[in-house]
Amino acid sequence: MSHESVYCKTDLSSVSRGDGRPPETKRWTCGHRSQQQEPGQREAGASPQVEHQQIQGGRSLTQQLRSQLPDLTVLSLPPQCTRQALAERMGRGSRTVDLDLEPRLELLRDDRQRYDHMTKLAQTLASQFAQFSVTQKAMADAFTELSFKTKNLHVEFDMNAEAQKFLSKSTETLQSAINAFTSDMNTLVNKTIEDTMINAKQYEAARIEYDAYRVDLEELNMGPRDAITLPKLEQAQKTFQGQRERYEKVRDDLSVKVKLLEENRVKVLHNQLWLLHSAVAAHCLSCHSFLEKNMQQAVEHLNVASADAPSWLEES
Amino acid sequence: MSHESVYCKTDLSSVSRGDGRPPETKRWTCGHRSQQQEPGQREAGASPQVEHQQIQGGRSLTQQLRSQLPDLTVLSLPPQCTRQALAERMGRGSRTVDLDLEPRLELLRDDRQRYDHMTKLAQTLASQFAQFSVTQKAMADAFTELSFKTKNLHVEFDMNAEAQKFLSKSTETLQSAINAFTSDMNTLVNKTIEDTMINAKQYEAARIEYDAYRVDLEELNMGPRDAITLPKLEQAQKTFQGQRERYEKVRDDLSVKVKLLEENRVKVLHNQLWLLHSAVAAHCLSCHSFLEKNMQQAVEHLNVASADAPSWLEES
Repeated sequence: MSHESVYCKTDLSSVSRGDGRPPETKRWTCGHRSQQQEPGQREAGASPQVEHQQIQGGRSLTQQLRSQLPDLTVLSLPPQCTRQALAERMGRGSRTVDLDLEPRLELLRDDRQRYDHMTKLAQTLASQFAQFSVTQKAMADAFTELSFKTKNLHVEFDMNAEAQKFLSKSTETLQSAINAFTSDMNTLVNKTIEDTMINAKQYEAARIEYDAYRVDLEELNMGPRDAITLPKLEQAQKTFQGQRERYEKVRDDLSVKVKLLEENRVKVLHNQLWLLHSAVAAHCLSCHSFLEKNMQQAVEHLNVASADAPSWLEES
Repeated sequence: MSHESVYCKTDLSSVSRGDGRPPETKRWTCGHRSQQQEPGQREAGASPQVEHQQIQGGRSLTQQLRSQLPDLTVLSLPPQCTRQALAERMGRGSRTVDLDLEPRLELLRDDRQRYDHMTKLAQTLASQFAQFSVTQKAMADAFTELSFKTKNLHVEFDMNAEAQKFLSKSTETLQSAINAFTSDMNTLVNKTIEDTMINAKQYEAARIEYDAYRVDLEELNMGPRDAITLPKLEQAQKTFQGQRERYEKVRDDLSVKVKLLEENRVKVLHNQLWLLHSAVAAHCLSCHSFLEKNMQQAVEHLNVASADAPSWLEES
């Protein structure tokens, strides 16, 4: 699978013109490891989907990424980078988009939110189970007391006391299983995925730096070439190459990490989802088995005890 | 079974003497329907247990009954009755105790409190089930969304979505069953038993009235007998007989009612306790059956779907 990077230059001023035409968008692509194409070289057969993705819709990919940019006032970036980041934030300039990696990152962020929501629901469930177990225990105690106090309902109260006692314990076990699930899900969300998210931020910083030097080079390329500018151009070309290699290294590392995370995540979730389902199923099975036996025992006790005691009206 | 009424005269002043001796207690018994014994006639072989029951302990039977007396300022009682009720409240005078009926009433009050406690716990359980069902539904929705979003975990998420959906519905059914239980228990506690409790209050009022006229007669009996007092004594004897018959009628009616209630209560509770246990058992059975099938289906889907897709590392 090859990486494809797209440089997008967006002049949003055309949007404010209100002429209904799509804003003027310049677009360059460079093959993943190819060094043949120079920045500033426009690619003819560019897919229009990429342009729409960035400008149309409530929140374009550019906007989404912009919102995740680090606070510019805090970072001591070279002036080019600050200018680049600002330009992107204002919806101007051009940025490099990795068409393979960035949608994966976007998906990861979305999934992370969903896993987080699911984990919080499971935590709610666990805390409800905890309250539940306490009530069941209290009911078991109430039934036990009534069983001692009420001779002619001893079997029935005792049956329910035993049932609630068992349910209370089984609920506690299930609660532990759900706690284990939420704990492992929290590790996935707040450690494993978070770790990749930190790398994604580093990648974003490297991308801005790379784009800044790329824009520098483009501007010099568009200017006149004389004895003063040629050495500058050469230097800019060199810096650009260095930044490009650095950017590609960071991107490739992140790409591998994201793919490994995807596999790991599937394995972890596969196991966790089976464990969760099995824990619920085991709880239901054990409760069902116990309650069935409990009822049989009660029926036997009642058959032994009640030679159907007559009413006091019949007695006299 | 015969009724036994005991008249208890208690002078609590001896308790304050602090001489360690039991307080001076006069005790008379009369057979349920026998008219031979006159009030004021002391019975020789009286069981000392009855005396202890009334005077010793933190809260004697007399004290318990006294706390249930109606507010004297509200009722327009004949002066004798007010005097009798006041004397009882101050721990003086004598009162008639039905040794068969009053312990039954005491037991009924105690049981009523226990049933009420049990019903409140069941209500708590039902409301916890309601919250629970909502969380399970939300989890089912979260799993369903994740199932659509995650192709390679579709089966696992879907399995858990179906499980939570089923559990949510089954929990709702169980909640309805527990609501039916609490509703029927509330009827028993707040209508059926309450109805008998109202009769018990009427019985208590009749008992006070009877005791008031009994004490009147006793006092006249102890005084001189002459042309002025004899007609008064005759009149008092007549009134006493009338009150006694009234008291005995009320007591007999209440006694029958209490016994019928005891039988009815046992039947109601027997049914309710079986229904409750069966509802819990049915919930566990249906959940168990569903989850087992659900897991089998998921395993089949996974077997069909996964010719164990290789890692992207293996793919390349």
